[in-house]
Amino acid sequence: MGLLTLILAEAALEAVPEALWRHPAVRSYSRKRKKLPQHLLLDRSYHHAAMKRLEDNEKRGRPDIVHFALLEALGSPLNREHLLQTYVHTINNYVIAVNSETRLPKNYDRFVGLIEQLFEVGRVPSTGQILLELEPKTLPQLLHETTATHVVAFSRSGSPHTLAGVLSRLSAEKMPVVIIGAFPHGHFTEATKKLADEIICVDPEMLEAWTLTSRVIYEHERAISLPTKRIKRTDIG
Amino acid sequence: MGLLTLILAEAALEAVPEALWRHPAVRSYSRKRKKLPQHLLLDRSYHHAAMKRLEDNEKRGRPDIVHFALLEALGSPLNREHLLQTYVHTINNYVIAVNSETRLPKNYDRFVGLIEQLFEVGRVPSTGQILLELEPKTLPQLLHETTATHVVAFSRSGSPHTLAGVLSRLSAEKMPVVIIGAFPHGHFTEATKKLADEIICVDPEMLEAWTLTSRVIYEHERAISLPTKRIKRTDIG
Repeated sequence: MGLLTLILAEAALEAVPEALWRHPAVRSYSRKRKKLPQHLLLDRSYHHAAMKRLEDNEKRGRPDIVHFALLEALGSPLNREHLLQTYVHTINNYVIAVNSETRLPKNYDRFVGLIEQLFEVGRVPSTGQILLELEPKTLPQLLHETTATHVVAFSRSGSPHTLAGVLSRLSAEKMPVVIIGAFPHGHFTEATKKLADEIICVDPEMLEAWTLTSRVIYEHERAISLPTKRIKRTDIG
Repeated sequence: MGLLTLILAEAALEAVPEALWRHPAVRSYSRKRKKLPQHLLLDRSYHHAAMKRLEDNEKRGRPDIVHFALLEALGSPLNREHLLQTYVHTINNYVIAVNSETRLPKNYDRFVGLIEQLFEVGRVPSTGQILLELEPKTLPQLLHETTATHVVAFSRSGSPHTLAGVLSRLSAEKMPVVIIGAFPHGHFTEATKKLADEIICVDPEMLEAWTLTSRVIYEHERAISLPTKRIKRTDIG
């Protein structure tokens, strides 16, 4: 009991799409990185000019959002108790299953290199225990696999509730799932919204995905009294 | 009322020290970045080999810690209410005063470039409203200026308490100050510990500085009922 499933959804994480491979900004970045454009992550910091012609471009090309949010998730006490299962669902319908033992690089360039390897090979590391695994998968398929009993998605367009109130109810579920958008602007698609039992707004302003991730996990920990349980262990030592 | 002062202390943020300027790893990085070594930030991701000879090297050269922690601080609802005052105190006794209006680059390389500019010029941006300001200043000097009425530092060697318990007391203070270590390993110096009214341990394992920053701010928000106050505003709109 006490398990929480976290899905970072419609994440702005993808390889540079074919339509951009010949753009000068992408070609010069490709030379600098010594990798073919198809093996590079789309990143607004470096491909801003090239991204103008992309559909939905304001939602795309922000690997840093997944990086920070995963660092918050994987470093949490909940994850260290193996009570957090983390997935990244990308805007192009890939799903990354994240092993709770994963120690992500804190350095952004190394994180990007790792995810590029994942997109190329499908798993990281290439041999031994799998830490990150990539598969083509939609959000409905993923939710079905998680055997979710209740799904909460967070969006500014949702019903206003405090996070404490939402999590105190949700955490009592057998298999609670939270969906957090991992894109910089815009909203969930209608298809994503339909998958949630509740769509909740916890603040009148947009919270960054990593901040919401941190707070949701912490409220779940509070709801299952994890801080108190863990702090007692410091007395023993 | 409701103000909180956050100090990211003994932060692993400094220019490359003179002893390392001639090291091959530093020289090649300097050529690549097209900047003199003295104008570059020390960064274990790139200067690992060179850092071996540095005193206290396990506590140094991690700008990413300040980056993530500041992103958590500046993006918080508390900061948007102008109820958070954030400072970075570095391991070499510089203090960065962070204007709450600052929108930090999310991209790590751009953050590093910005801090390098700050170390060179002393303020960012160089003209107009100051967002980041650097001054030589010790932690006692900074604490004196904040007119702190109660100072809590977080350390695994402190007294065990839940964060909720600590903040519910601290947030009732006139001028509460929290000190969070922004270094990767080791402990606060004895001098830093003596400045705190309480040293608190909130988890038996080390929490990353950005996670602790996020949770401390959120508990302070809860203690002053900010989530409820802000969520009511969504009903009006």
